[in-house]
Order: sequence, then structure tokens, then C-alpha cells
Amino acid sequence: MIKITLPDGSIKEHAKGSTPMDVARDISEGLARNVISAKFNGTIIESTTPLQEDGALVLYTWRDPEGKTAFWHSSAHILAQALEELYPQVKLWVGPAIENGFYYDVDLGEDSISDKDFKAIEDKMLEIARGKHDFQMREVSKAEALEYYKGKNEYKVDLIQNLEDGTITFCDHSTFTDLCRGGHIPNTGIVKAVKILSVAGAYYQGDENNKMLTRVYGISFPKQKELTEYLEMLEEAKKRDHRKLGRELELFTFSQKVGQGLPLWLPKGAALRERLEQFLKKAQKKAGYEMVVSPHIGQKELYVTSGHYEKYGADSFQPIHTPKEDEEFLLKPMNCPHHCEIFKHRPFSYRELPKRYAEFGTVYRYEQSGELHGLTRVRGFTQDDAHIFCTPEQLDQEFKNVIDLSLYVLGSLGFENFTAQVSVRDLETPEKYIGSVENWEKAENAIINAAREKGLDYVIESGEAAFYGPKLDFMVRDALGRNWQLGTIQVDYNLPERFDLTYKGSDNEMHRPVMIHRAPFGSMERFIALLLEHTGGNFPLWLIPDQAIILSVSEKHEKYAEKVLNSLENNEIRALIDNRNETVGKKIREAEMNKIPFMLIVGENEEANETISVRKHGGEDLGAISLNDFRNLVNTEINSTLKSF
Amino acid sequence: MIKITLPDGSIKEHAKGSTPMDVARDISEGLARNVISAKFNGTIIESTTPLQEDGALVLYTWRDPEGKTAFWHSSAHILAQALEELYPQVKLWVGPAIENGFYYDVDLGEDSISDKDFKAIEDKMLEIARGKHDFQMREVSKAEALEYYKGKNEYKVDLIQNLEDGTITFCDHSTFTDLCRGGHIPNTGIVKAVKILSVAGAYYQGDENNKMLTRVYGISFPKQKELTEYLEMLEEAKKRDHRKLGRELELFTFSQKVGQGLPLWLPKGAALRERLEQFLKKAQKKAGYEMVVSPHIGQKELYVTSGHYEKYGADSFQPIHTPKEDEEFLLKPMNCPHHCEIFKHRPFSYRELPKRYAEFGTVYRYEQSGELHGLTRVRGFTQDDAHIFCTPEQLDQEFKNVIDLSLYVLGSLGFENFTAQVSVRDLETPEKYIGSVENWEKAENAIINAAREKGLDYVIESGEAAFYGPKLDFMVRDALGRNWQLGTIQVDYNLPERFDLTYKGSDNEMHRPVMIHRAPFGSMERFIALLLEHTGGNFPLWLIPDQAIILSVSEKHEKYAEKVLNSLENNEIRALIDNRNETVGKKIREAEMNKIPFMLIVGENEEANETISVRKHGGEDLGAISLNDFRNLVNTEINSTLKSF
Repeated sequence: MIKITLPDGSIKEHAKGSTPMDVARDISEGLARNVISAKFNGTIIESTTPLQEDGALVLYTWRDPEGKTAFWHSSAHILAQALEELYPQVKLWVGPAIENGFYYDVDLGEDSISDKDFKAIEDKMLEIARGKHDFQMREVSKAEALEYYKGKNEYKVDLIQNLEDGTITFCDHSTFTDLCRGGHIPNTGIVKAVKILSVAGAYYQGDENNKMLTRVYGISFPKQKELTEYLEMLEEAKKRDHRKLGRELELFTFSQKVGQGLPLWLPKGAALRERLEQFLKKAQKKAGYEMVVSPHIGQKELYVTSGHYEKYGADSFQPIHTPKEDEEFLLKPMNCPHHCEIFKHRPFSYRELPKRYAEFGTVYRYEQSGELHGLTRVRGFTQDDAHIFCTPEQLDQEFKNVIDLSLYVLGSLGFENFTAQVSVRDLETPEKYIGSVENWEKAENAIINAAREKGLDYVIESGEAAFYGPKLDFMVRDALGRNWQLGTIQVDYNLPERFDLTYKGSDNEMHRPVMIHRAPFGSMERFIALLLEHTGGNFPLWLIPDQAIILSVSEKHEKYAEKVLNSLENNEIRALIDNRNETVGKKIREAEMNKIPFMLIVGENEEANETISVRKHGGEDLGAISLNDFRNLVNTEINSTLKSF
Repeated sequence: MIKITLPDGSIKEHAKGSTPMDVARDISEGLARNVISAKFNGTIIESTTPLQEDGALVLYTWRDPEGKTAFWHSSAHILAQALEELYPQVKLWVGPAIENGFYYDVDLGEDSISDKDFKAIEDKMLEIARGKHDFQMREVSKAEALEYYKGKNEYKVDLIQNLEDGTITFCDHSTFTDLCRGGHIPNTGIVKAVKILSVAGAYYQGDENNKMLTRVYGISFPKQKELTEYLEMLEEAKKRDHRKLGRELELFTFSQKVGQGLPLWLPKGAALRERLEQFLKKAQKKAGYEMVVSPHIGQKELYVTSGHYEKYGADSFQPIHTPKEDEEFLLKPMNCPHHCEIFKHRPFSYRELPKRYAEFGTVYRYEQSGELHGLTRVRGFTQDDAHIFCTPEQLDQEFKNVIDLSLYVLGSLGFENFTAQVSVRDLETPEKYIGSVENWEKAENAIINAAREKGLDYVIESGEAAFYGPKLDFMVRDALGRNWQLGTIQVDYNLPERFDLTYKGSDNEMHRPVMIHRAPFGSMERFIALLLEHTGGNFPLWLIPDQAIILSVSEKHEKYAEKVLNSLENNEIRALIDNRNETVGKKIREAEMNKIPFMLIVGENEEANETISVRKHGGEDLGAISLNDFRNLVNTEINSTLKSF
């Protein structure tokens, strides 16, 4: 008998050689039906792998990320078999699971694959799946493995030559065999729906001097309905792509001449940013933050002190030299070193702490051009940054205050679906962390207490803390069900040490302050991208560029339209006017496309009665109302989103 | 006889060999008494130099910059003579007039000069001056000149060796002779007051590998009263030095580690900047500007297109390289190329112009460390920049609008003393300018008309226009009578050409827009420096960091003080509280030092009557008034400065 420890801490005895599936069946038939993968003593195994010793077992279903990985990895095997059957000359290289689905890199020889071939591949895959073939791992010697592929597939031969004898395994299912480390679902029958998504070129070993292989992307699901939903989501995501909406709504642009990954904010986008910034500034002021302004460069020495140069220097924008003097500057990749120097401008007493320095600081980080993507992966972005310098005793309260501010920000922007991830030390490797054990305990407890007290839905991740302190990250789920890591709150014991920051305590001695780094938006660029995709451009009313558009029925009503515009502007409602000689129908269609929340139609009756006919974006007709009623309507809607702080 | 043309265009006949002084005497005895220098056919001459041909003559008095230059240059001769008499081993190098006074670089051998020697030097100089010795120029051959200094002064020998024979002149006065190009006052007797200001080290030929000489700084005046006033102004300027006030009022700081010339804005300074920015943003919004945001770097290619790289590249911060790709970026030294690319993001029709793109854009320009000075000479600064892209027909109105905005800005900040300098083409060298003659005429007329129509006190400077267009600069006179060049408005035909900017005209053809560059503040850093020195830190009430401070008479009134603070904050009055256990007298003294406009004293009576006792900065006592009256007082004072726009 062996002892199996389950995630809830319970220990079950099983016969040596039992499989994870046996353990599942012992718990419930329902669970057994759903288990598709497992982890034993930290290693991913099959649900059919016999267990030979005591150990910790985790069972995975489709709902777990690990379950999806096994599902998609296994689907890549099915794809490979389908390709071998359809393209007899094909040579396989590698085929991993990815975030959404899987791919396989293959050499098709003279053949090629295009959109019109996808259906045939999908059909072949489903045919194989329906065969309910078991996935079976077996160990092979290096000689056997080489013998198997010799003369048939130089890519696999190359892979095997880099492996150590005694660690090599093959996986068989149906008539198909692949070199594979393991981690499959029990059999192909679980795969009920597949979709080939795209093909792309991919250099062998990622090296552009090598041969270009074909990468076939696919995704699969245990139910047809899930595939349908996924494809609908993809379709919707395409419509909401922030790069497309950003162009259509004239929020931002890129210029080849200025440089890739360096967004240029157009008037409507810049005004949107300004509103977001003013919104946060106002809340920060109430929360006792003070704005500071620091330059976008700093001497290399600054980053040697902070430790960033040693860690990131080689992969960053390279140093800037001066023509006449022996100086080196770096584009700032973060604001913290500058804020540490601001904190040092004069000595502080404990009575003056916390100091909360905030800055919308634009930072520059080099990313390879292939990695750049719209506003989500850029080379220059503005952090809604702040650094709190406090005594260890103040940490608890400060952390809670930062959570309050973050919740206010998320709430005011319509995010209701989020979780918090608390990253703490790995207790087994205390040597990895800077700062006293006492302070770490204090800080971790402060974060967990704060998360609990504020009612956050949080998970604790051991060993995920940075070496300099524990942290809390907000993970936001957008309207399409995708997760984005947003605002972060980090405790830091390292920079106060490196910059030798001190304050005078009540004991008249000098003490080391603790730092909190925090950014509720994260970066203005990434946040606006998320907001665009989350709302599809239908921003909350308080934030949207144009809140209303006045559509005149004919030229005769231009004057009245202007009068309405004036009245709205005096009441700080952002409005446009469309006085073109076009039909109201056409004007409405364009206003819909431009995502304007309120269309105010003015014609004969409206002018006579001093009203406006209000049509909401999406079509709801509110009829003719007075300007005063419209103002109240706008204010009510704004106040319902923009909570007080 | 020769014909002498005077600046007013009148032509006078004089005997050949007449001097400028003779011409002056012919005009009036009063003028002759005041003439101290002259310019003939473009060359500075003595007022005693005989005129041998027809030509244009300008006569200078002490009131002209050229007159001051002659006065101070001549005073440097007197200083040199005094030094030779007091320090027999002295070897002279060079001694020019500077903006305020003059200096002489000398090798004192074993001797040295310190503060306590200044009086003796001044006395000796005055003694020489009282001798009323004429300054007399004479030509010498190179051989004679070398012979004169050989074995006595290697510095002058070196100077002479680099001169061409036939161009060398000496100047004699009293027993003193100096190698000199000319430009003196008639005689030493005009110098009535002198002051040695300081001594400093200066490397021979400015090369740090050479010997360190002694630079003796002095200033002189035709009247004792003028010296006294100048010294008082210096004393006041020292008190108002923005570097000192900036530190005392905690507005900004510098850090060696961040880098010299890169200001760090502390909370009070950052808030002040933000108020200035919001003030201008609000006015700009009314004037139809749109904010944009652009990155702080751009590809080198961007500046090759703009022409800046060719012109300034070698003297700028050097290009930034990336680790993995062959790319080169530059820190942006100006915002215009970025704004041109923003204008190019889509085609515009003439109906959509003007586009007025504004940005508080932080730019970086390399300055040698020796040139850096507080906030007035920095390496990174924020321009309140905007670029107007308009049709040639719109230029006139746009220029007037920009002047209106500039006048609003100057007025709201308490500057009443300013002139405008209009820089136009040199009509003799049309080849130096880009753009059609027709456009230039249009633009120059637009500027001059606008300046006249807006009632500006302006001067036209021919040949001072940039090659790409004419401009108007505001010159502001501060409270100490010093002139600062502030906001600029420039017409530009060059960048639209270089960036191939176009719009579709009413004729359906593509046309080239005109650009206007403008910045009413110039740079936020320099403007705040000026404002600090102009106001001595007593900013206009709408702008000052803390508008009021509540001083509690004793602990008993802390609660009431807090209540007053709350009430002020609710009315958007920026206030502090001083509840320390100190005397009211001490609290008042500190508030005075911190330049807080209103001190609100709260004690027994005030609490009982719900009033505050108001003391203005400087001492005026307004007695006990209600909070409501105080709010009105503040609003009235703000409205009297902050004019409507």
C-alpha cells in the first residue's frame, strides 16, 4: 500500500500501482468521469500512470488550466496524426499546448496548407478522436529512438540527440507514435470539437537562418457548444480589437517615422487620458498623495544604485552619451529610483510620514519589434505610479488604503469581475529574500489581512513574491471572459536599503522606511486598450470622448442646434453637432458607429417646444424631453458609475 | 566734404576728418556731452576717430547697449592699469566688456587678489579716472607690437602672433598701453563709480590643461547713484535667486545621482506647475486648441527629415541604440516633428483647418555642465508647446489669436512691462529664406498688423527672422528691471515642406499648410524661475502653493482651527494649519518666511464669534472677519488678477 495526500490535506491508502483515475474513482464516479490529467509529487503525469510510492496527488479536469494543457497537448498529437495521414511527406518537429489551443510545427516538403484545407484536417482529427484511442507512454532507449526516426525525420533526430539516454519516452495512440515527455488525457474520445485556426511560417529552432516550417494552429474542446462560444468570442474580440477601435474613434496612431511601439495620442485619446488622470489625481489627493515630476532620463549611476542596471541593462535601450563630457544616461524604465532621490531631498521625521509621491511617469522599455502589439505591448508607456514611504507600523493601514483606492478605480470603470493574487515568500528558501523575517511576516500578514478585510476574492501564491517584498495583483476578467493583470501593490524592503533611505523615529534614532509601489491602472496605454476591448468603445459616460451629438433635421434648425450645444457646453456636457445636409437616418448610423451615447434630434417640434428628442446608443428612444431633464439624465447616469471616494 | 547719413535718414555734410563728436556737436551740445561711442559703416569706432569718407553714422550714449559696451571696455583698460600699478609682476591677457560690467584675465605670478584687496583696486581706478586721460588708438606693425611685449608678456605675444600685420592697433591712455581693437569712450574722466565684484580662476585660452589665470570682475557707471542702485539690485536679486527660493519654498530639488540640469519637482512645485498648466489648458480649450501626447524619443530618421539632426545632432545627447535591432532613437529636443506626424495621421480638408495641437512636451537638450544654472539653463524642460496648421489665408487671424492668448497669460501672472520684437527677413539676401516671397510678405504683414492692432509696444528687427519664417518674441522686464525673453510665436514654411504636409483645398487640389510654433510660457522651468525672481516667491494668489495658514493661539483652539480648515478646503482655498505649541509671533514669522499671503489667527474671541483674525503677508491687519467675508476677499483678489479669456 502507498499513502496518497490530496490537496485538501486528506491522506488515502491505495495499492501500489494504482492510477490517478483509480484514486478519483475512489472519491466519486463523477470526478473519475472528468479527470483528464494529474500531478504527482510536482510532476505532470497521465491519469493512467501507475503510482509507485507515497506522495501528493492533484487531479485535474477540463476546468483547470493544467487540464486544458493536457487536453490541447493531446490534441496536438491528433493533429500530427491527421497531418501524417493527409500529407504523407510531412515531417513533424514540435507541437505544444499554448494559452488558447495548440500548434504543431511541420515540414510539409513540397506541400502547403491553406484555409481551404482546414475542413479536411478537422474532419480527419474528429475521425481519429472518435476512435477513442488510449494515449500510452513507453520508455525507449536513445538508440531505439534514433533508429525509429533515422532517415525519416531529421528534426526529431536532432531533438533526440540532445536528450539523455534513460529519459526518453514515446507516446502511442492509434497507429501514431511521437517523441513526447507525457501529460495526456486518457484517450482521444474526449475531444469532441476541433478547429484549425490558422497557419503561419515559423523558422526551425526560431532561427531565421534555418528553414521555414509551417505552424498549424488549432483549438479543441470537450463539447461542441464550447467551440461555438469560443469562435463567437473570437469574432467579438476582432470587432473590439483596440487597435481597430483606436483608429476608428481617432484615439491614437502610430508613425513609422517616430518609431514602432511609440503611440501618438490624438486629441480625443489625449483628452480621454487626461480625464482618467484627473479622475485618479482627485481621488489620490483625497487619499493624501502628493504629485511630483521627475525627468525621463537618469544617470546610469542611478540604476547601478537601484540594481536595475545589473539586472536589465543589457536588454534595455542602451546608454545615452553626451558630446563633450564623460556622462552616461539611461531612459528611465521605472520611476522608483527618481522618487527615492526625491524622498532624500531633506531629512524627514516619523511625524511627517507616510510620504506618498505620485507621478504619471512615462517610462521606456525596449521590446523586440516582433513582440509589439497595439497599446498592450509598447516601448513607451505612462504609469499611474506612486511610491509610499512609511514606517513599518504604518504598512498595514497604508496597504488597506491602497486597496480602497484600487477598488474605487475598478468600480468607477465598470470592472466587477476581478480577483486578487497575493504573492508571498517560499518559506523553504529564506535566503532568497532581502529584509528581516519579522518584517516579511508583518508585511505578508498586512496584505492578507487587508485582502480579507476588504472582502477581496483572493488566492495566496507561495514563492511568487519578488526577492524584495510580497505583493498583491488585481486580475481583471473582461467582458469576453479574458483575464488581464491590472494594478499591482508591492511592498519593497530593497530600494530603501540600496538608497540608504532613513527617517528619524520617535526614539530620535534613524530608521529605514518601507516602500510601497502601486499603480491602480498599471499603465495608461494598456489600461485604455483593456477598457476599449472590455467596453467595445462604449466607455462609461463620465469618460467617453463625446457624450452627445446634436442632429439637426434640416438646415432650418441649425441655429437651434447651436443653442442646444451652447447650453450643454455650459453644463460641461461634451457634445458635438452634426449640421450636415444629410438625412437624420444617416446621421444616426454614423453616430452609432462613433459610439456616441446620446443622439439629440432637433427639428420643427423640438424647436417649437424647446426640447430635444433623445435616442440612446443602441436604439432606445427616450422621446422629446427638456434640456434640463437631459442634464439630469446625464448626471444620474454618471453618478451611478462614478462612486464617491 | 563728406556725406554723413544719420539713423533717421537725414544726411549732413561735414569736412573730411571730422569726428563723430563733431557731428554730435553740430546736432546739439547736449548730445555731444553724452556721446561716448559710435558706429560708422557698420564698424564700432571711437567718438574721436576722424571720418574720411561718406557713410552711415550712429552715435551712442550710456543709454545704448553699445554705449555701455564702450564704457565697460574702457573701464577694463583702467582696471588693467590699476593692477599694473598695484601688482608690478602682473601679466595681462584679455579684458572684455560683458553683459553687466567687464573683467580682465591676468597672471599675478606669486601674488593673489582677495576681497580685502578690492577697495585698493577701486581707489586706484578712480584715481586714474579722475586724471581725465584720453583714450588714443594708434596703428603698430606686427614687429613693433611683438617687440613691445617680448620677454615681458608671453600671453600678448601669443595673441599678436595670431594677428595679421597691418591690422594691429594699440590703445594708450595715461601711462598705460594695451593691445586693443578699439571702441572706447573719449576719456577716463567719464567713469565716476567703480566696483570690483569678484575674482575667479580662469584657464588660459579656456583650456583646463593650461595655466590657471585670475579673472577680476568689475562694473562701472557714469554716476555714483547708478552704482548704488545696481548694488541694491544685486542684493535684492540674491534674495530672490530662484535656486534659493526654490529650496526654501520646497518647490524643486536637484540630485547628483539623477544628473545635473535635471530638476526634480517636489510636491509644492509640481502642484504649482499643474496649476499653471491647467490655467493655460483652460484658455487653450476656449481658443480651440486640442491636446495631444507624444513620446519623449523619436527615431533618428524623424530628425533627419526635420533637418534638426544635421544642424544640432553632433552637439546633442547622442543616439540611443537598441540591444537586438539596428535602430537609433534620439531624445526629443522639440515637439514639432512629432506633431507633424500627428497631423499626417489622416488627410484633412481645408474645412477642418486650423488644427491646433498643444502639448506640455518635455524635451531634452544637452548643455555643458558649466553652462547649467538652476531652472534657467537645464538639460530637460517642459515646453507649453503648440503647433497650428492652417491655410495661408488663416495665418492673419491665427496670429492675432495667439497674441491674445499670450497677453492673457502675461496679464494673469502680473507682467505689465513687456515689449514685442518682430523679426523679419533681410530683404538684401532673399536666397537665405525658404518659402515664396508672396508668403513671406503675407506673414510679415500679418505679424506687424497683429502687433499694431493688439496695441503692442514692438520693434522690427530686419534680418533677425529664422530661415524658415518670421517671428514675434515677447521680452518681459522683471521687477528688478532685468529683461527675459519669454513666449515666442513663429511662422514656419519649412517643416510643412520637409514633412510633405498637405490639405485638400476648396479647389479639390492638395495645398501646403503653414505652421505656427508658439509657447506663451516658453518653458515651465524657465518661466517659474522668472516668476520666482519677479515676485520674490510672492506668487499671484490664484497660483501660490498655500493661500492661507491657520494659526491657533493655543491648544484649546485646535478643534476650531480644524473646522476653519475644513470650511476653506470645501471652498477650494488651499490652506494649512499650524497647531504647534509655539507663540503666535513665532508662527507669524515662519508664515512670513514661507510667503503665505493670509495668516488666519484663531483664539478665544474668534472661536466665540465664529470669525478669524486676518493678517496679510507683509503685515497688514484686516481684523476679525467671518469665513464668508474671507472667502469673498480671496475671490475678489483672484478675480482682479486672473482676467477672463
